[in-house]
Parts: sequence; C-alpha cells; structure tokens
Amino acid sequence: MPLESQLLTALSKEALERCDDLALLTEETGAITRTFLSYPMKQVHTLLSLWMREAGLTVRIDAVGNVIGRLEAADSRTVMIGSHVDTVPNAGKFDGILGVMLGIALAKAVHLSGLSLPFSLEVVAFSEEEGVRFALPFIGSRALVGSLSPDLLEKRDAAGVSLSESIINFGLNPFDLAAAKAKDLLAYLEIHIEQGPVLESKGLALGVVQGIAGQTRASLSLTGQAGHAGTTPMNLRRDALAAAALVILEVERLAKATTGLVATVGMLEVQNGAGNVIPERVTLSLDVRHLEDGLRKRAVAELLDFAWQTARKRNLAFSHEIKLEQSASHCNEMLSGFLGDALEDSGRKLFALPSGAGHDAMVMAQISRTAMLFIRSPGGISHHPNETVQVGDTRAALDVAYRFFEKIAAAPAVIWDANTR
Amino acid sequence: MPLESQLLTALSKEALERCDDLALLTEETGAITRTFLSYPMKQVHTLLSLWMREAGLTVRIDAVGNVIGRLEAADSRTVMIGSHVDTVPNAGKFDGILGVMLGIALAKAVHLSGLSLPFSLEVVAFSEEEGVRFALPFIGSRALVGSLSPDLLEKRDAAGVSLSESIINFGLNPFDLAAAKAKDLLAYLEIHIEQGPVLESKGLALGVVQGIAGQTRASLSLTGQAGHAGTTPMNLRRDALAAAALVILEVERLAKATTGLVATVGMLEVQNGAGNVIPERVTLSLDVRHLEDGLRKRAVAELLDFAWQTARKRNLAFSHEIKLEQSASHCNEMLSGFLGDALEDSGRKLFALPSGAGHDAMVMAQISRTAMLFIRSPGGISHHPNETVQVGDTRAALDVAYRFFEKIAAAPAVIWDANTR
Repeated sequence: MPLESQLLTALSKEALERCDDLALLTEETGAITRTFLSYPMKQVHTLLSLWMREAGLTVRIDAVGNVIGRLEAADSRTVMIGSHVDTVPNAGKFDGILGVMLGIALAKAVHLSGLSLPFSLEVVAFSEEEGVRFALPFIGSRALVGSLSPDLLEKRDAAGVSLSESIINFGLNPFDLAAAKAKDLLAYLEIHIEQGPVLESKGLALGVVQGIAGQTRASLSLTGQAGHAGTTPMNLRRDALAAAALVILEVERLAKATTGLVATVGMLEVQNGAGNVIPERVTLSLDVRHLEDGLRKRAVAELLDFAWQTARKRNLAFSHEIKLEQSASHCNEMLSGFLGDALEDSGRKLFALPSGAGHDAMVMAQISRTAMLFIRSPGGISHHPNETVQVGDTRAALDVAYRFFEKIAAAPAVIWDANTR
Repeated sequence: MPLESQLLTALSKEALERCDDLALLTEETGAITRTFLSYPMKQVHTLLSLWMREAGLTVRIDAVGNVIGRLEAADSRTVMIGSHVDTVPNAGKFDGILGVMLGIALAKAVHLSGLSLPFSLEVVAFSEEEGVRFALPFIGSRALVGSLSPDLLEKRDAAGVSLSESIINFGLNPFDLAAAKAKDLLAYLEIHIEQGPVLESKGLALGVVQGIAGQTRASLSLTGQAGHAGTTPMNLRRDALAAAALVILEVERLAKATTGLVATVGMLEVQNGAGNVIPERVTLSLDVRHLEDGLRKRAVAELLDFAWQTARKRNLAFSHEIKLEQSASHCNEMLSGFLGDALEDSGRKLFALPSGAGHDAMVMAQISRTAMLFIRSPGGISHHPNETVQVGDTRAALDVAYRFFEKIAAAPAVIWDANTR
C-alpha cells in the first residue's frame, strides 16, 4: 500500500527542511560551498548519522567519507538509494543533497510503515561527486565500485594536501579503501534535480532517466594571420575569428538537426585580441553529448571535419585535441520499467528523458543495475544559489520512490537473476 | 632636374642606415620600444639635430619634444615634411622613423643640389604618435596644430607621471606649448610605410594616399541565459555566443560586399566562459573604416541593426557603446595631383589607395593641405620586429618626393591661394 497523504507530506517536508539545515554547513559565510572532507562535511556526518539512525538504519562511514545507513534483511544482497552531499562553490541547496534526504525519508517510510523488504536496504550519502577539491569527480562512488586507484590518492588539492592526507586529517584511514567496495548490489536508485529545463517546459514534476549521455570534450584551434584592422583589405585577410564563427554556427545547426544531441561552444579565446587587430589565433571548446555513443561520435567527427574544411577554404591552420571521451551509461530497463509503473500508478504522466549531466549513477552502473528519477528544476537553474525545487514535486518523488520499492519488493526474486545489467 | 642615380642611392641608403641606428635607442634591451620623452628619445634628439644641421637646416625643439629643422626662404610660409620617431612596444625600425629619415634626406638633397625653393622648408620629427605612454596618440602633431588642450597635460602615465611633468623632466617647458603652434603652413607631406598588404599584392613600390579613412569603434554586448551544456536542449537555449557568431559573419559579409570598407571584430570575450556552460554574455569589439564618412556610418548602422534583430529573434538582450567616431581626412587633391605626377614622371604606375590607419597627416590636415606617400610593406607587417622595407622602394620614395618638391617649387605661387584645403 502506498504511503498515505499525511505521512508523505510530513516526510517530504522534513526532507526539504533538512536541505535547509545542511545549507548552513559551509566553508564560506553567505554561500554554500562544501567540498570533499572539509570541516563542514564533518558536521554533515553528525546530522546524517542522527537522521539515518532515526530512520532505523545502522550507520557506517567508509574510507573516503561516504556515509551509509543499512537496513539488514534475511537476504544480504542490497538495494541502494542515495546521491552526494558535497557541493560546487556557491551552490544551491538541492543538487545531490535532496537525493540523500529523500533516501533517508524513504528508509524512514519503510521503517514507519513496516514495509517488508526481501533484500537489504542501504541509503548512501556520497562524500564527493562534483570534483572541486581534487579536480577529480566521483571520489565517493569510485571508492564504492572499487575504481579509485591508489595513484589517484596522490592527487593534491590547491593547498598541496594529497587525497590520502585529506582522508587521514578527517580521521579516516586510506588503508580501509579496499573495504569500501560494495558487494552484492542488486540495484542503485538515485533521485536528483534535473538541472535542466525539460521537465518544466513539459509541465511535469518528474521524469524517468533513460541514461546518462556520453560526452566528448575537445579544444579546437584556428590560426590565420594577424593584421591591422584598418590597412588590410577584406580579400587579403586570414581572420581566425570569422572562421570560428562558422564553426560555432555549424555546431548549433547540427545539434538542432539531430534529435537528442546537445553541442556547445562554451569557451572562446582570441589570443592577443585587440579591437584594431585581425584575430590570428582563436581557441574554442566543444562539448558534445548524446545517449547513443555512435551518434555522438559521428557528430564530433562531422564537426571536426567541418572545422578542418573551413580552415582549408580560408587558408588557416586547424588543430584539435580531445580532452574527454566518456561513454553513455544506460539505466537498467527493468528498473526503469518499475519506476515508470510507479510514476503512472501515482497518477502522473510517464515521461522519460536522458541526463546530459554526469551523476553517481553513471559510476554505480559499473557494479549495479541503476535507475534514476529526475525532479523538475524551476528555471533549469542549478549550481547556483537560486537553485530551487517545488514542495509538491518533492512529495511526488517520495511517493514514486516508495511505490518503486513496493514493486521491486513484491516482484519474484528471480527478476534479479534473469535480468542482466 | 631630378636627382641623379648615385646621389639617390647614397641618400636613400643613408636614410635606411639611420633607421638601423635609431633602432638601437630603446627602453628595452633586445626590442625597439621608445615612448614619448623617454631617455632614448633624448639620444634620438642628439642624432636628429646632428643630421638636420648636416642637411643645412637650423634646428629647434618645441615644448613637447618635436624636433624641427628649418631651411629659411624669402617667403617664410612653410612646406613641411616629416613623420614621428616614437614607437609602439617591441616595434619595427621603420614605422614613422623612415618618413623622418626621408624628410632629412630630402632636405639634404635640396641642400646638395642647390634646388631653390620659393617657400621655407621644414623637416619635422614628431615626438609622439602611437599613444603608448599616456594612452593619448598624436601628442606631437596636436601640439603643432594647437589642439593639445591644457587638461590633456594632466593625463598621467602608468607610473603616475603627468604629461606636463614628463615635459619638465625631459628639460623642456610646458609653458612654451602655445609657441609650438605652427604658422603659415602651405603643405604637409608625409612618407610612411603602408602597414598593409595592398601595394605588395599589386606589385607596386609606392602609392599616393587618397586620405585617411574615418573610423568607428564600438563595443557590442549580447546577453542570453547561462545553462548547463548537457541538460539544456538546443530549442530551450539562449546562447549569446551563437548570436555573436552571426554578427561576426555579417560584419565580414557586409565589408566584403562594400568597396573600400574594412570591418573587424578583433576582440571577443565570453563572460565566465566554461566548456560545459552555455554562454550567457558575450562582448565583442567592432571596428569599421571607410574613406567616405557617410558610407561608414551607414555600414555601422546596418551592423548594429543586424545585431539588434539577431538578438530579438533569439530572445537575447543587445546593447552597444560607440567608443570612437573619427571622421575621414582627405588628402589635398592638388598636392596629391603633384605627387601622382611625380610618381608617373619617375616611371612608375600611378596608384592611389586610402589609409586605414591613422597618421600625423590626419591631425596636420586641421591647419594645412596634406599629402601622403605610402611605401610597400613586405608581408603587410608593421608594429612588429619583422617590419621591413625594400632598399629599392625607399630609393623610389626619395626620388618621387624630390620630384614633388621640384613641381611645387616650379608652380606659380598663386596655387597656394587658389586652392583651399
């Protein structure tokens, strides 16, 4: 039986109030900034432990500071729900945090309702996802899947402190890293704000995430010849910025013409730019994302070829460097099916969308089936103090999450065997 | 009778060697940097005085450090030839300097040949044209035309020294400024390297300058909305850089389609640009030049309108600021006629072109008829250590300049009355 209205209201309201509470724990007065294993993260641990215990969970903290609350069942195989509790500098209150608070609310609902789960339940608060302190994202989930290799522990932050030193300074033990690896995960569910405008534009509170788009990031350079803006006639110019403009517009055109593709030139620098000098060298960034890796790779190839052709026609030099190439991570179809059913059962319209941003679920997919639920982001705003979430949407997310757990609890155990990741 | 071959060779060779000599007088070892009233400028004065006296001129230095050599005639009205001896940082050897050295060579040729001039002759070495030290160009010629207003004397350089203090420190007297104003100028001739690729592209050594193009400089801003490059679908974007790209290409298109128009976007900045963020705000520079002011103004209006329309279609905000609006300065038709005749008499093809860069002649036009002769710039390179000039081209310029002086000396005196500026 799904959660009744009053409990749903109480728990979702409490989850939002807890986001407000955690927003006070910050490295910067007047802003929300909470990086990996900072002092405010210690304070966050105190509150998380309290709230998890209250939800009937036993709490442990692993080697990288992930806080995990566990409800043990006869079957030790585990379904996990969670997200991250670190933030970008000058962040909003909800990115990551709300997913953890709703995980605790879900556990509390299970605890209060007495819902019997045929698997163990874990709520995870990842210590690091944003990659701020060590320019290395997903430290929390990497530790959990066992992919935080020892050389990464040598990375240093801006103050020169290594990752392993930061662990020791926090009172944890880097030698416990191997023990942090999760065992026997049946499923991982993450609830997260959308961080984009799609759900809002459709008038929907929630959406089932199909997967996390693969991503290519590249840097492009066009080199022509500097010249005096007054004395060089148009037909004798080799203007790198004019060529870059053609590339920018082709990036936009191709992405608009390709369903599901997003492509962005977010950075552009005119080297030694001056108002009266024809641009000699321009560097620009390219960010291309799609849920289908093949489609993304073809788009990148087409755009690089366009830039090369443009440079050739205009007698410029062109070079590029691929900075990042990350494959798409598809959510598990069976879990997404249960999540979609839960959404429809709750009286809402089923809507599925890709995630263009990375999430812990992407890392967790290495060792587990994953599912993700997006909550509408008003204005599409995130990574900004104006990030918000609606009370009703939060309540709806908890409702759907609880129905999802009811469904997988009621399903025959064989589903976990029959369905591969 | 024009100069004979051996003297022409000797004097033009000497002019180039003197450019080499002056290149050693610099504020920076290993580079040519000589700003207004710097210590090396003092050394330049010593050499200039020597060379001018040797050419039969009497030398004076005015309140802002212009060095002027004069050959007095019965008629005290003056024809002046010259250019500037300051440089940009890390300059070439010839920009400005060569025009002064050829002025001295011309005077020396007059001195040696005994050419009788019915007007006084002056060779001027302007102390400042580039605007480096006080972010104020044309200090030398402004003083000469009487437009260096007292408030400009309060301007301060990067070290906090005021313009009038710099004059005193150099051993000159700012109270002599009024006396620096030139009287009874009949004509001003300036020989200068082209600083552009036009003559080279036509295979010509020299060109008669029609005038100095008028210039509009503006700053344009486009403001859309930042967004996550992964989570914001293409149809929900308000990308300021994509709009800027359209503007850049329209600037290029319009200039290519309009004879004599040059238009440049030389600077572009994406505010808080990041590879994974949709550009919210882009500022770009616009530089538009044409010899016809009406045409330039219409082009600027069309480009601003295009930017405004583009912003409107894409739901962006657009604003602009005009930073500089400078009218064209036309060279005197009669003088340019004499210069063209001299060019053809020397066996060269007559070719006229506008100057897209500013020159002292533009300021001098406020009180005098002006003419300008451009010397081919190999590779169009200037304001750079690689700036060069060919020996033969320099020789040709001196040949033409001497023929020009012969022509205006031989013309009936009434031409100076009949022809207004």
